[in-house]
Amino acid sequence: MTTNKQIHLVSRPQGEAVADNFRLVESEVPALKDGQVLVRHHFLSLDPYMRGRMNDSKSYAAPQPLDAVMIGGTVGEVVDSRHPGFRAGDNVVGMGGWQQYAVVDAAAPGSLRKVDTTHIPLSAYLGAVGMPGVTAWYGLVKICEPKAGETVVVSAASGAVGGVVGQLAKVRGCRAVGIAGGPDKCRYVVEELGFDACVDYKLHKDLKSLSTALKDACPNGIDGYFENVGGVILDAVMLRMNAFGRMALCGMISGYDGQPIPMQYPQLLLQSRLALRGFIVAEHMQDWPEALKELGTLVATGKLKFRETVAQGIESAPEAFLGLLKGRNFGKQLVKL
Amino acid sequence: MTTNKQIHLVSRPQGEAVADNFRLVESEVPALKDGQVLVRHHFLSLDPYMRGRMNDSKSYAAPQPLDAVMIGGTVGEVVDSRHPGFRAGDNVVGMGGWQQYAVVDAAAPGSLRKVDTTHIPLSAYLGAVGMPGVTAWYGLVKICEPKAGETVVVSAASGAVGGVVGQLAKVRGCRAVGIAGGPDKCRYVVEELGFDACVDYKLHKDLKSLSTALKDACPNGIDGYFENVGGVILDAVMLRMNAFGRMALCGMISGYDGQPIPMQYPQLLLQSRLALRGFIVAEHMQDWPEALKELGTLVATGKLKFRETVAQGIESAPEAFLGLLKGRNFGKQLVKL
Repeated sequence: MTTNKQIHLVSRPQGEAVADNFRLVESEVPALKDGQVLVRHHFLSLDPYMRGRMNDSKSYAAPQPLDAVMIGGTVGEVVDSRHPGFRAGDNVVGMGGWQQYAVVDAAAPGSLRKVDTTHIPLSAYLGAVGMPGVTAWYGLVKICEPKAGETVVVSAASGAVGGVVGQLAKVRGCRAVGIAGGPDKCRYVVEELGFDACVDYKLHKDLKSLSTALKDACPNGIDGYFENVGGVILDAVMLRMNAFGRMALCGMISGYDGQPIPMQYPQLLLQSRLALRGFIVAEHMQDWPEALKELGTLVATGKLKFRETVAQGIESAPEAFLGLLKGRNFGKQLVKL
Repeated sequence: MTTNKQIHLVSRPQGEAVADNFRLVESEVPALKDGQVLVRHHFLSLDPYMRGRMNDSKSYAAPQPLDAVMIGGTVGEVVDSRHPGFRAGDNVVGMGGWQQYAVVDAAAPGSLRKVDTTHIPLSAYLGAVGMPGVTAWYGLVKICEPKAGETVVVSAASGAVGGVVGQLAKVRGCRAVGIAGGPDKCRYVVEELGFDACVDYKLHKDLKSLSTALKDACPNGIDGYFENVGGVILDAVMLRMNAFGRMALCGMISGYDGQPIPMQYPQLLLQSRLALRGFIVAEHMQDWPEALKELGTLVATGKLKFRETVAQGIESAPEAFLGLLKGRNFGKQLVKL
């Protein structure tokens, strides 16, 4: 038998998530039934949405059950298969969870997808050519609707989603401005990802200072905004939005620990005739093929850049995840399994 | 010479608007130049947007200048004309301002429009078949996008805009629920306008109570919301919005006195994947003909009901306007000139 190390959620956070909310569990990999595939995971994706699932509250998705493997995207390799569409050695992407192995009912739609690693590294299917990349694409293209010459701003700009947003905006002829925490991340956003400017929110902690910095970085105002953070960052951006601006609400990581963070100036939505829409990329599967085609081409040709932070071993997943929530990662946070 | 009584704005409000912000001024009507039309106003429209214009702050429109006639929609009768398109006796609607007479450059697009009073009373062109009606139509049809069987909620439901929103929603097969202040207004909204239910916000002053009342009135949740008020009413509605709900932001009268009222739970925009858009109906002139066609037909056939509160004489305009801001009017607030 093969031993499978897993991370379970064993309690729900009271405020901040902590390491004690998780537990390492060892189990045996069961024998495959007809239609099942055994996948050895190479990488686990850690993403902010997981924090929301840890709460037992009304949200867009069911809560993560207690005493079960944490949900999560994975890439890996088929090691055994009783499904005719898969064979040992196939590279696959799926939602295998925080564990080393997964037994997958491969017939379920969307459960497992074969991917080609000739020109695209396997881990990129968890990032720029995966859910984060499609998230960036959908929010930018379908909600922000950028036109050449406009200014697009994105928060968490050095992250797996934010970095793609700005680069896709540049491809469309926009001025791309990031918001990120600290000089290293801001330098990376401008020098490596090619954004036009990046505002360091750690240098500008209050609304007035942040809003002034955004004014300097966006001399023509802001036409499209892609929100990952919320709180004071959202308020500061709203003060700089142009009339008829579009805002894609993808995440509000600043409020994930439970306390709601009010929007200070909702009347700006009216005064500036803004359009704002919250979205979950998994609800827009019809747009994934178009998005993945553009993202895959850009990554394969070296035109879409990204960075990864890789924690080693399943045991490191909880700490890496808690670090992600505090912005300690740089680019896409992965765990090598 | 003809004497023309006017109301000027002479100072800007510090917080609440007060009667001293206005002054009655008498002037002589000047002789007409070529292309001009002299209109004797029969009714002046008082509308919440005027409060915003009194401030000298960034908004969607230029501030109302000091020591000039207050802006406002008017209906009246042509008494003299030096424009070939108009002659004495024509019924017209325009933006004549808070005064008894207006000299209008009739060639300017949209400055003056002849209207037919055979089946539609003249005053209705300031209400259900005018700017308020089109505002209701645009926000409902173009932003809330109601489908038969859905639930549509509107605040300030007994007002000139809100009353039309609910009736148009009923025409489209929706459940229409109003929010209004006091038992008389709520009874009117249900019994005379035909809404399915109306929540009295004066009975439910805090978020929890209001939100519970909305839950009772909207057993299937809320799919479309038309916002005229903001503040705690907006918060309470957001707690009841269904996934993929649409919110039209038309006014936030609760914050017009200057102090911004935060939105308490912006994360609901994400969790419920809401779409929200602020709009100004004057920026969507291309939709007016379609809207006015439906509204005019419904009023002429008695299917769209409305009520008017009529103050007498130009001198009464400031107090009537201040009452409107406090919700003392019932239906469309007019001044008979």
